[in-house]
Amino acid sequence: MRALLAFRPEIGPPLGALTDLLLHAPGSLTAGERELIGAYVSRLNACTFCCNSHAAIAACHLGDDEALVASVLADPESAPISPKLKALLALAARVQRGGRDVRDSDIARARDAGATDLEIHDAVLIAAAFCLFNRYVDGLAAWTPTDPDAYRQRARQTAEHGYAAGLPPKK
Amino acid sequence: MRALLAFRPEIGPPLGALTDLLLHAPGSLTAGERELIGAYVSRLNACTFCCNSHAAIAACHLGDDEALVASVLADPESAPISPKLKALLALAARVQRGGRDVRDSDIARARDAGATDLEIHDAVLIAAAFCLFNRYVDGLAAWTPTDPDAYRQRARQTAEHGYAAGLPPKK
Repeated sequence: MRALLAFRPEIGPPLGALTDLLLHAPGSLTAGERELIGAYVSRLNACTFCCNSHAAIAACHLGDDEALVASVLADPESAPISPKLKALLALAARVQRGGRDVRDSDIARARDAGATDLEIHDAVLIAAAFCLFNRYVDGLAAWTPTDPDAYRQRARQTAEHGYAAGLPPKK
Repeated sequence: MRALLAFRPEIGPPLGALTDLLLHAPGSLTAGERELIGAYVSRLNACTFCCNSHAAIAACHLGDDEALVASVLADPESAPISPKLKALLALAARVQRGGRDVRDSDIARARDAGATDLEIHDAVLIAAAFCLFNRYVDGLAAWTPTDPDAYRQRARQTAEHGYAAGLPPKK
């Protein structure tokens, strides 16, 4: 992502600020829930770099429970998570396919499971944002680290400090 | 878009700044070329609101030539546009399908047609960004104006003043 942004350093600040608001800033959904949505959408888009990165960040937010994260990525419906998060992940999967694939019943399921309008809004926007991130990374065939320790190290830093700090400074 | 952002006014400034940089700020590609990429990706995503909005803005940048815009949206390969823009629209269509659908030959075609690395980067990022915008709008079943005059009026304003000005102010 840094290598890509080096082409256009002025993109870094707004993209970093948007990502930080969606994933890291205090919100109604926990940071762990939001990172799981991002990692899951990245898996559906087959974006290895984003999936591994955000799965690692999700684990940091969820007591380093990498097994929990893996179970969500493999099959949210059978994972040990709340019905609300299951509904939001199902909604995110619709958004990943396309905005027009979202059905009234997807929204109704999330509401029935206790999701607020803001949480539904945020889940849709996070899923849509990862459809940008995943395409940006894979569309430009970015270099991706292959050492899992590199992901874990970066994940810890991002989980603690968010996204705005790690991006190129404003010129 | 405004109605959606009303849920989360703090999203407006970074999303507006990003959109303005991609589509309106001075760039290597003309604003007309960039709006055409956005309108075309929106058509491929079947997002009527974004396609109509950005087609109208593209026309403003292209001497109000709505017929040209329509021909590009219908079939870029036979439209009266440069080989470079045709190649970038073909690349954008790959990105719309998924980041992993982009092939080396798509990049090579754009380079052969005279596109710089920065122009290729920007075309991919614009296409990826519309995969966010389209899903945000349709995923939340936003209200969409049906009167074409509403699009033309808003388009003129956006073509002149960009995107950053029209979004909710920073709190």
